[in-house]
Amino acid sequence: MEVFIEPIGRLINEFSKLPGVGRKTAQRYAYRVINMTESEAQAFAAAIVNAKKKVRYCKVCGNFTEEEECEICRTRDRRTICVVKEPKDVIALEKLHEYRGVYHVLHGVINPMEGVGPNDIRIRELLARIGEGGVEEVVLATNPDVEGDATALYIAKLIKPLGVKCTRLARGIAVGSEIEYTDDVTLARAFLERKEI
Amino acid sequence: MEVFIEPIGRLINEFSKLPGVGRKTAQRYAYRVINMTESEAQAFAAAIVNAKKKVRYCKVCGNFTEEEECEICRTRDRRTICVVKEPKDVIALEKLHEYRGVYHVLHGVINPMEGVGPNDIRIRELLARIGEGGVEEVVLATNPDVEGDATALYIAKLIKPLGVKCTRLARGIAVGSEIEYTDDVTLARAFLERKEI
Repeated sequence: MEVFIEPIGRLINEFSKLPGVGRKTAQRYAYRVINMTESEAQAFAAAIVNAKKKVRYCKVCGNFTEEEECEICRTRDRRTICVVKEPKDVIALEKLHEYRGVYHVLHGVINPMEGVGPNDIRIRELLARIGEGGVEEVVLATNPDVEGDATALYIAKLIKPLGVKCTRLARGIAVGSEIEYTDDVTLARAFLERKEI
Repeated sequence: MEVFIEPIGRLINEFSKLPGVGRKTAQRYAYRVINMTESEAQAFAAAIVNAKKKVRYCKVCGNFTEEEECEICRTRDRRTICVVKEPKDVIALEKLHEYRGVYHVLHGVINPMEGVGPNDIRIRELLARIGEGGVEEVVLATNPDVEGDATALYIAKLIKPLGVKCTRLARGIAVGSEIEYTDDVTLARAFLERKEI
């Protein structure tokens, strides 16, 4: 006989599709569902279908939205565009309550090793936005890793001739961290880009 | 404005209810759902509702089943009952393909610190099964911890006067482990219960 009865096995399979979830974790999640009340399980399932159905990408910036154009694009200062890799980067930056401009979500970075070229991410759309005029600065906020840096450089090369200011997030040792435990590359970079006080 | 749009926030909330899932992990799961196809999301939601609706507890042993009585109870040797804390213990034991008897799932162990007494777990149901006759041995396979041991002892005291053989899983050093790294309690126990070869 099968170790799991069919409805549990099927649910474990579904949970296993989530990122970083193995069989054991999926099993624990499935047991949790079975111990939910009927209405809790219904609410859980409804939230999944609802999110998938209602969430789409903003036609301007590519971020998640329920409308055609997201709230940030509709209400904020369009002179500055902050370019990020993924929607979750927008969340991280929005939590700061510092930035008042708009975003542009690339949905990826250039990564030749994985076959992702400039045409596979939303660079064309970014150039089109800049082409419409009114953009004064583009902040390249891709991750400080090889792919993120390469993508930022690639975009900067395309944008600079258009007369738009192009910036990149500052790199250095993390606030509150200890020099002793900072990795070599970061420390070297922080030293190289040291500022007069 | 809210950091997350409503459908995403709601889905993150639902995922946060799963055991060991914090906000960050729930967020990653929610993003995965949004990147699913419509039919994948539908299948995921359906598996949740389906599992909750179809899975119930076997009226005899208390294990998960789709029928009134589970397949193990219907088809296996009822002379031996293996008593476990949770359905997942049945899964672990069934994987061995060694045991040919039936089970009894307590759905908990006696734990006075958390207010769980003998009447809060399925001990009464176990005694009723034994009372029906035909049971020759009860294997107490609760976890080898304080609560598991106390529960096993409690049950053994009730069962022994009924003339039923009562056994407990052997404790000792794990097969393939190293004595050097075995914890003191286990090692002491293994020494005490050493067997002639």
